[in-house]
Amino acid sequence: MKRIRTIEVGSHIGERVRTTGWLHSLRQMGGISFLIIRDGWGMIQAVAETEAELAPLFASQAGLESVLAVEGLAVTMPQAPGGIELHNLQIEVITPVTEELPVSLNKRKITANLSTLLDHAVITNRHPARRAILRLSAGAMAGFRGALLARGFTEIQTPKIVASATESGANVFKLDYLGRPAYLAQSPQFYKQIMVGVFERVFEIGPVFRAEPHDTTRHLNELVSLDVEFGFIENHFTVMALLRDVLASILATLSGHYAAELELLRVQVPSVPAEIPHIHFSDAQELIFRRYGTDVRGEPDLSPQDERWLGEWALQEFGSDFLFVTGYPMRKRPFYTHPDPERPEYSNSFDLLFRGTELVSGGQRLHRYGDYLEALEKAHLPVEPFESYLEAFKYGMPPHGGFGMGLERLLMQLVGASNIRLTTLFPRDLTRLTP
Amino acid sequence: MKRIRTIEVGSHIGERVRTTGWLHSLRQMGGISFLIIRDGWGMIQAVAETEAELAPLFASQAGLESVLAVEGLAVTMPQAPGGIELHNLQIEVITPVTEELPVSLNKRKITANLSTLLDHAVITNRHPARRAILRLSAGAMAGFRGALLARGFTEIQTPKIVASATESGANVFKLDYLGRPAYLAQSPQFYKQIMVGVFERVFEIGPVFRAEPHDTTRHLNELVSLDVEFGFIENHFTVMALLRDVLASILATLSGHYAAELELLRVQVPSVPAEIPHIHFSDAQELIFRRYGTDVRGEPDLSPQDERWLGEWALQEFGSDFLFVTGYPMRKRPFYTHPDPERPEYSNSFDLLFRGTELVSGGQRLHRYGDYLEALEKAHLPVEPFESYLEAFKYGMPPHGGFGMGLERLLMQLVGASNIRLTTLFPRDLTRLTP
Repeated sequence: MKRIRTIEVGSHIGERVRTTGWLHSLRQMGGISFLIIRDGWGMIQAVAETEAELAPLFASQAGLESVLAVEGLAVTMPQAPGGIELHNLQIEVITPVTEELPVSLNKRKITANLSTLLDHAVITNRHPARRAILRLSAGAMAGFRGALLARGFTEIQTPKIVASATESGANVFKLDYLGRPAYLAQSPQFYKQIMVGVFERVFEIGPVFRAEPHDTTRHLNELVSLDVEFGFIENHFTVMALLRDVLASILATLSGHYAAELELLRVQVPSVPAEIPHIHFSDAQELIFRRYGTDVRGEPDLSPQDERWLGEWALQEFGSDFLFVTGYPMRKRPFYTHPDPERPEYSNSFDLLFRGTELVSGGQRLHRYGDYLEALEKAHLPVEPFESYLEAFKYGMPPHGGFGMGLERLLMQLVGASNIRLTTLFPRDLTRLTP
Repeated sequence: MKRIRTIEVGSHIGERVRTTGWLHSLRQMGGISFLIIRDGWGMIQAVAETEAELAPLFASQAGLESVLAVEGLAVTMPQAPGGIELHNLQIEVITPVTEELPVSLNKRKITANLSTLLDHAVITNRHPARRAILRLSAGAMAGFRGALLARGFTEIQTPKIVASATESGANVFKLDYLGRPAYLAQSPQFYKQIMVGVFERVFEIGPVFRAEPHDTTRHLNELVSLDVEFGFIENHFTVMALLRDVLASILATLSGHYAAELELLRVQVPSVPAEIPHIHFSDAQELIFRRYGTDVRGEPDLSPQDERWLGEWALQEFGSDFLFVTGYPMRKRPFYTHPDPERPEYSNSFDLLFRGTELVSGGQRLHRYGDYLEALEKAHLPVEPFESYLEAFKYGMPPHGGFGMGLERLLMQLVGASNIRLTTLFPRDLTRLTP
């Protein structure tokens, strides 16, 4: 008999079907046994009313997480999880598990502490709640990509091993490249800009590497970056408009195709306003002073507390979970940032705050060769390591800009995870290199 | 006026339109000037019949690759490239280029030697033929992903920094990870298998790193790997059937959505037979002996010449560009390979030959914990570095398998490129770390 997925059993009521998966739980009540079979997509309850039905399990001492094929009659049963179960079982043990699990997978929440949970991520990623987050991550990638492909963007994959470590001053991982020093890319920034000269509109989903010795709940040393860059923009507002649409597409993809995961995690997907409210950096500081009585005017950046205040204000004032802060001071932004032509101490850049926390950074970049030479000089950076990058500008680049968004940060904020390590398959941090 | 893309001009015949892009070429014949404007998608010819129309170019000394906005009347003109051109031009110079290009971009082929071409990849990737290959690469990713999403696969992104270098014996890049030794992943093999325990069906598109000191036309040190792994298979033939469908989807995507690129490159997309012919490794060696008179029987692997002969045979015998060779000897396959239950010296693995060259490797993997312990012992490998990986098998894995395919290799064989370095944005090889 051909195997069907657990999520398909509902379309086969009254038929005998074959499911395969892992023995997620087994409860015996009186003479009746309730098995839950978990496959790659969902779960189904199977009910054995006789000892004989379970005999194959006992014969191979197959415990939890054993891989089984379970044939049975699909029936509706209001009190069963999902309202469906299998009766009159015929069980085949494909791979018996005889060892006790290090972490229980069939409680609603994993009770293990974070460290144990991550040490055994190979197994704990099977937990329905963990899996739901990881699946939402796939959905977010799909929504991101869908929005961009629909707008004529080309997907690229840029090198992760690079010759120069000088992009933005962040700490980078050093590498022995066949006898020469090399580094792991901390972002595809230069390459995505270069590729605007080729395809005009590009995006990339890929790993980036940060050698910061952080140990916080919000930083990873390897993360998945969703990157966008495109040409012929007016200024950073063109980029913000695209970002708004990309976010809307991500959230629509999740609402539309990941309802079960959202429900399991009790996540309410926020709505993206048709136009996300925006406030200039200097106005944001004024607002904080007037509204919260703290004078941060003149500070070169916003603190996490500032961001929380602004998030609160945006929610109260506009009913929006999202807020753009624009025009960050040039001195805190990387050298390729385009200044505001009217007030050159401020930049044509933005951060997107989501519920009071920075989610995305972006902006307009310099596009004239001469401007790059000046900017490097001003930043006391040598020209030589940037020569290939500069070639793009020497030979014609349009006004362009883009943004980068960490996939894990997006997930963390969306599902309200307490730690970013819970939003990725196998986190890399200060102490963790395995699994 | 709103800008339209060059490929949209044909839908606006008789209207004035605004295009933007790079000045790809400029020819003056008598009093008439022919400009070709290249944007991110295509090219359009613009014809100036007066000096005044070109005045903005001269005023800013804007040469080739200058970024322009060109407004004009869209007219059909049979002798124009694409049968369409713009008349009565109004030209605006957005970014003038005054420097001579290091490599000419407006000849049908790039005449520079490979080294110059790659040194200036930032610019040479703009060449229409280069760009077409890179765009096909995006199309191949889309076709790969589309086939798998339609079959319930989940996209994953696994860590690229790993603690252990012992996977398959290939040379790996060593890294300083915040004071500890670490390595760059040479493949997502272990992680994709582990994730079969979570999602059953997974795929990944991402970079892999090989520290082999090769200097051939067919090897890169960083490449993009298209990886698939899934559970509840019968044996390697289940994997081969999926690979057949994935390939068909990739090629259908290219034929369906990348006709212009294929035409420009004069590439004939091969057809994938409904069932790709297959031959067992030992029969392949017999065939080579009988048909070509060379006795390779008993060799543990096929040589490139063997593969060419087999490709020739498949084409003549089955009219197929593709051939599966199955059952490679166990001793040449990695330790996680599943043996053929009937002839345990052979494996449940395969290579896919495309036009006589290996394109994909795959097969069934071991899935029982005890088998892994035995296999590691047989391979004289310690258990300790594999402990996390082994946890997946200790706690129940179904029969599973998958394959991995290098994106650049696929492109190389598809477009008939003479060197794999021509199929990727910015290649990494023995000597090349920039651009």
